[in-house]
Amino acid sequence: MVKIAIDAMGGDFGAEPIISGVVEALKQREFQAYLVGDEINLKSLIPQEYLKFITFIQSDEIFGMDESATDVLKRKDSSIYKAIELVRNGECKAVVSAGHSGASMSLATLRLGRIKGISRPAIATLMPTTQTNKKTLVLDVGANVDCKAENLFEFAIMGYAYAKEIMKINNPKIGLLSNGEEDCKGNEITKETFEMLKKLDSFIGNVEGNQIFDGSVDVIICDGFVGNILLKTGEGVASAITKIIKQNVKKSPFAILGAMLMRGVFKKLKNQIDYDEYGGAPLLGVKDCVIISHGKSSPKAIKNAIFQALKFSESKINEVILDELTKFEK
Amino acid sequence: MVKIAIDAMGGDFGAEPIISGVVEALKQREFQAYLVGDEINLKSLIPQEYLKFITFIQSDEIFGMDESATDVLKRKDSSIYKAIELVRNGECKAVVSAGHSGASMSLATLRLGRIKGISRPAIATLMPTTQTNKKTLVLDVGANVDCKAENLFEFAIMGYAYAKEIMKINNPKIGLLSNGEEDCKGNEITKETFEMLKKLDSFIGNVEGNQIFDGSVDVIICDGFVGNILLKTGEGVASAITKIIKQNVKKSPFAILGAMLMRGVFKKLKNQIDYDEYGGAPLLGVKDCVIISHGKSSPKAIKNAIFQALKFSESKINEVILDELTKFEK
Repeated sequence: MVKIAIDAMGGDFGAEPIISGVVEALKQREFQAYLVGDEINLKSLIPQEYLKFITFIQSDEIFGMDESATDVLKRKDSSIYKAIELVRNGECKAVVSAGHSGASMSLATLRLGRIKGISRPAIATLMPTTQTNKKTLVLDVGANVDCKAENLFEFAIMGYAYAKEIMKINNPKIGLLSNGEEDCKGNEITKETFEMLKKLDSFIGNVEGNQIFDGSVDVIICDGFVGNILLKTGEGVASAITKIIKQNVKKSPFAILGAMLMRGVFKKLKNQIDYDEYGGAPLLGVKDCVIISHGKSSPKAIKNAIFQALKFSESKINEVILDELTKFEK
Repeated sequence: MVKIAIDAMGGDFGAEPIISGVVEALKQREFQAYLVGDEINLKSLIPQEYLKFITFIQSDEIFGMDESATDVLKRKDSSIYKAIELVRNGECKAVVSAGHSGASMSLATLRLGRIKGISRPAIATLMPTTQTNKKTLVLDVGANVDCKAENLFEFAIMGYAYAKEIMKINNPKIGLLSNGEEDCKGNEITKETFEMLKKLDSFIGNVEGNQIFDGSVDVIICDGFVGNILLKTGEGVASAITKIIKQNVKKSPFAILGAMLMRGVFKKLKNQIDYDEYGGAPLLGVKDCVIISHGKSSPKAIKNAIFQALKFSESKINEVILDELTKFEK
């Protein structure tokens, strides 16, 4: 049975939603959950019949969201540190954490180590598209705010491997996010990256922001500064539209009735664009599997983050990254 | 009567939507429209009673969307060149063009000239928010893909002046777009910009992508690369949501009825987030008023672009920019 380490304490809402997520995941699939946190407290949240799938690793310390990421290296008793160590020492195949994402990245990079040839790991996230069951992988979405062309090239290799091994796309199409589709568009760094990416058969050229959502490309490359802004902008537009609709529905009895009749449609929309459907973002480029979840993750998000961890650890993604890098070694 | 130069040929759909927009504008406000294009062709599109508000400036050449922006300087007979010259020689107070935006910028910068102290003009655009009648000004959205901190600082000054003089906000709040709200967030350039912006009373710190749409800030500063990506991402999300709703409504008679009952709500949503409500983006930092419209502008968009040009040319925005710059001269 695959063993997954779970930082049970790191999230914004404490252990409850995380443990509910673990139980939800266990209802659908067997795996061994290594829960890092306060055993007595955690045990009380788990139904008897699932205890056989649980191993408790005692930790009383939480690494706070307001702490500086690099300080985590000194906090060896914190739940996130202990969870990462379970992977480092080979006890677990993967780790899921909804705690301080900077801390998870620091620990992953420094304690688990980078894949040979990758200078900067990146956080990848799946974005919804208008095509059912088709997602776009975007990376980096926050790990690296200042990138060189070489970093973006590595992100493309990692995105390619993820699309092939995890999304099961045979010939993934990779696009470079830019301010226009034409080859001449871009800033200094992306223009340099464009020249490097030409070496990849899977590279289709520059893509624009709207192509994230139309399913025309499988993997989109950008730096972590732009990636963070596009995530937040996308969330902002979606929540603004929802809010404006709700504000106006309230004003008319006809519209209230209409909204009731459209409930199924809105539910499908919500499911299709829902972050909880993915639940977490893999950190690509480190030697093992680290899934970073949002601090405010719901049980559903945690459940899906665990499924991502299982899929990742059963895949050959890191071998593919290494193979591809070897092809382009200078 | 204020005289506005209009490039009647530059748009993607030819003269028709542009002339319809001019006529729509004239129905609501008196001004003198200097239409640059083929007189015989244009005249046939204008109802007799409005001809007294029109001056025709003959031009048979269109500067194509696929041409390189800098080539426009040699194309003295093109409609965009002649429209800009009408402002340069003082005949008109402002120019509206739905033509090649790069060409409009080149001409504006080189033929009209930059405001003293501004090294790079920027394109500013109004973005919708969830608060009725409240917009957020975002700049730059495409003129400058590679920016230094000094450029972003100048954008803040220009945005401040626009918010004060055109949006009529007494104490505009300026935010710097970043990958997190905390002071420590940002890439190298925005961190340097942050330090410079501290000098401004109106600066509220870093803002995130979702704050574009919640009305919490009046002006948001970013470089043109990020600005373009956030515009396209925003459009992409809005159109994806619309598409997913439509796809699912079709599948159920109840939902079809529901959508009919909600028609008023969807119309209000469309109006609130509609680009055509603004119609064009001012190029800030040049000595005169240049409004850049989308190549695919509807008559409504052109009408509102003209209203923007009228508002701009009746304001003291460029004096305010100069005054503010003087305060912070080294």
